[in-house]
Amino acid sequence: MPETHLNRRAALRAELVERDLDALLVTDLLNIRYLTGFTGSNAALIVAANDDANESRTLFCTDGRYLSQAAVQVPDLERIIERNSAVKLLEKAEASGKLGFESHKVTVDGLDSLSAAAAGATFTRAPSLVEKLRLIKDDSEIEALRMACAAADRALADLIGQGGLVAGRTEKEVARDLESRMLDHGAAGPSFETICAFGVNSAVPHHRPTDAVLATGDFIKLDFGALVDGYHSDMTRTLVLGKAADWQLEIYELVSAAQAAGRAALVPGTDVKQIDAAARDVIAAAGYGERYLHGLGHGVGLEIHEAPSIGQLGEGRIAEGMAVTVEPGVYLEDKGGVRIEDTLVVRAGEPELLTLTTKDLVVV
Amino acid sequence: MPETHLNRRAALRAELVERDLDALLVTDLLNIRYLTGFTGSNAALIVAANDDANESRTLFCTDGRYLSQAAVQVPDLERIIERNSAVKLLEKAEASGKLGFESHKVTVDGLDSLSAAAAGATFTRAPSLVEKLRLIKDDSEIEALRMACAAADRALADLIGQGGLVAGRTEKEVARDLESRMLDHGAAGPSFETICAFGVNSAVPHHRPTDAVLATGDFIKLDFGALVDGYHSDMTRTLVLGKAADWQLEIYELVSAAQAAGRAALVPGTDVKQIDAAARDVIAAAGYGERYLHGLGHGVGLEIHEAPSIGQLGEGRIAEGMAVTVEPGVYLEDKGGVRIEDTLVVRAGEPELLTLTTKDLVVV
Repeated sequence: MPETHLNRRAALRAELVERDLDALLVTDLLNIRYLTGFTGSNAALIVAANDDANESRTLFCTDGRYLSQAAVQVPDLERIIERNSAVKLLEKAEASGKLGFESHKVTVDGLDSLSAAAAGATFTRAPSLVEKLRLIKDDSEIEALRMACAAADRALADLIGQGGLVAGRTEKEVARDLESRMLDHGAAGPSFETICAFGVNSAVPHHRPTDAVLATGDFIKLDFGALVDGYHSDMTRTLVLGKAADWQLEIYELVSAAQAAGRAALVPGTDVKQIDAAARDVIAAAGYGERYLHGLGHGVGLEIHEAPSIGQLGEGRIAEGMAVTVEPGVYLEDKGGVRIEDTLVVRAGEPELLTLTTKDLVVV
Repeated sequence: MPETHLNRRAALRAELVERDLDALLVTDLLNIRYLTGFTGSNAALIVAANDDANESRTLFCTDGRYLSQAAVQVPDLERIIERNSAVKLLEKAEASGKLGFESHKVTVDGLDSLSAAAAGATFTRAPSLVEKLRLIKDDSEIEALRMACAAADRALADLIGQGGLVAGRTEKEVARDLESRMLDHGAAGPSFETICAFGVNSAVPHHRPTDAVLATGDFIKLDFGALVDGYHSDMTRTLVLGKAADWQLEIYELVSAAQAAGRAALVPGTDVKQIDAAARDVIAAAGYGERYLHGLGHGVGLEIHEAPSIGQLGEGRIAEGMAVTVEPGVYLEDKGGVRIEDTLVVRAGEPELLTLTTKDLVVV
């Protein structure tokens, strides 16, 4: 996808010009991946604000381990091979003028080394410039997210359809089974540590799987995702084994209604606090406001949690092309809890749902 | 293990007194885990240099998600529950005097927020104080490493013994199989992305598993490890499928001799450059110096790569209680390569081997 990366660097250059920066030193590996396609564990990149059509002033550096990989992944930029990548890149570039750096990622000690390597440059804080671009996903990113969501959907369908949720299995066994099935469907791995919670454990929002055993009447809360081409899916479904009790049906319907309200509020231009409120108000009106203490959702992409944050303390407005989760929950201590979560893309009309597993209550 | 953590904090206090610091703000999560046992994803800790027996001036902060977990894991310290942990902790502590911070981890922007929260304190760079303590492993850490190495040993024994290495399997399949078997033996997960390389791919030091198929005569290079209680094991074994050719035997014996020389050099007080040289000289003397371009080893513990670095550019001396790898290799481009790696603990006499799988050439 060299053209995709070329376009992203062009968008970054427009930001640099607007901020009166001569160049940006990019040291965050995910941001480098976004701008170049490089997936190794050591790299640095300098993007010049004003560059020629061949981007001859935009330089990339990695070390010898990645010599051949960099040639394949970053064919379109000059590649420097040095172990101390950011420092060597600055020396090679003879950086001068107003040089932006990622002050939200560069450490206090790290800035000393960088400054010493480019005495002629004026180091200027330039936090989150690439993250700002990453907020709006392009088609190739949405396709990767779609594949990641599909791997998770299929894994859950297999788990349910092939008898994976039966009395006697432990949370750890089910979590591992689900993760293995995501690999069967093309995931490089889980996108985060799978949450599998049975019965009373489902009341703990971020429960880690234990040796607790599944029993009839238990809620089964599964919060999991797949990693495909570096992109993270995120989905939660809560099921019941055997037969659902009235209290379970009640909170399930409530969370389901809140989640639908949250999805419906994903309209471009809406303040994230309003989106959070759309779902939260449903739960609060039913008297369960104190049983739902986390935010409504977050962006997903190259990170499992990225901007925007959709919550009571969130800032900014939602925009077309953002990929976000919507995941309200109600948790009754010592009893059980329900969370329902989708990954969606914000569109001009309705949001596009990427996690397609049913949200009707599944009783297995 | 409250006593273990108490002892570690006492050792840190001695460092603070020596450096004339009134307190250290610890924000790195692994360092917090080391000092308190807390395993959550948001925390901060202030350790006062001069504290009473109850450590009443040493404060811990995490957010509401970890309320009950923190009560179990950190029963011995005052716990503050706030989302913006480091900032709130500083406000609560009314920090003043000479306050050390982890300048190798705190970002440039992060320091601004911290400084604003403790206007009365003089922020002082104090990089790697906890990492310095972490260099020397205590008994509980070595026990965790021992279990992690055992999980990897057993997984490999199962893989070989149960027909996991047969012609026709892909690198990806074998890597996944090996990782799954580590879970069977108590690992929480792999300690890093498993390297599985067949045939010519074994010549790439850090090859990522592909769909390449195992064939008779291939080298099988497996570099993998298990994660147990937060501690990382690391081991490489190179096997041959079917029958070994003369060139394969030759470089295997060479790497084996180099690895033995490296292990023998792990004597407390030895400069890490000398340890590296002990193995490297064996390979260079055989004319293969240019086919071995990485370092000899690294520390392992709460991180898969931590200090000390044992290589040509390494600094310092090895000491009793350090846990390190010894992993020379010879890589013949377009032909194949061999790496043999153990995890060991440096002891007063011979080092203690934690990875017990045979280093004789295994032909499967």
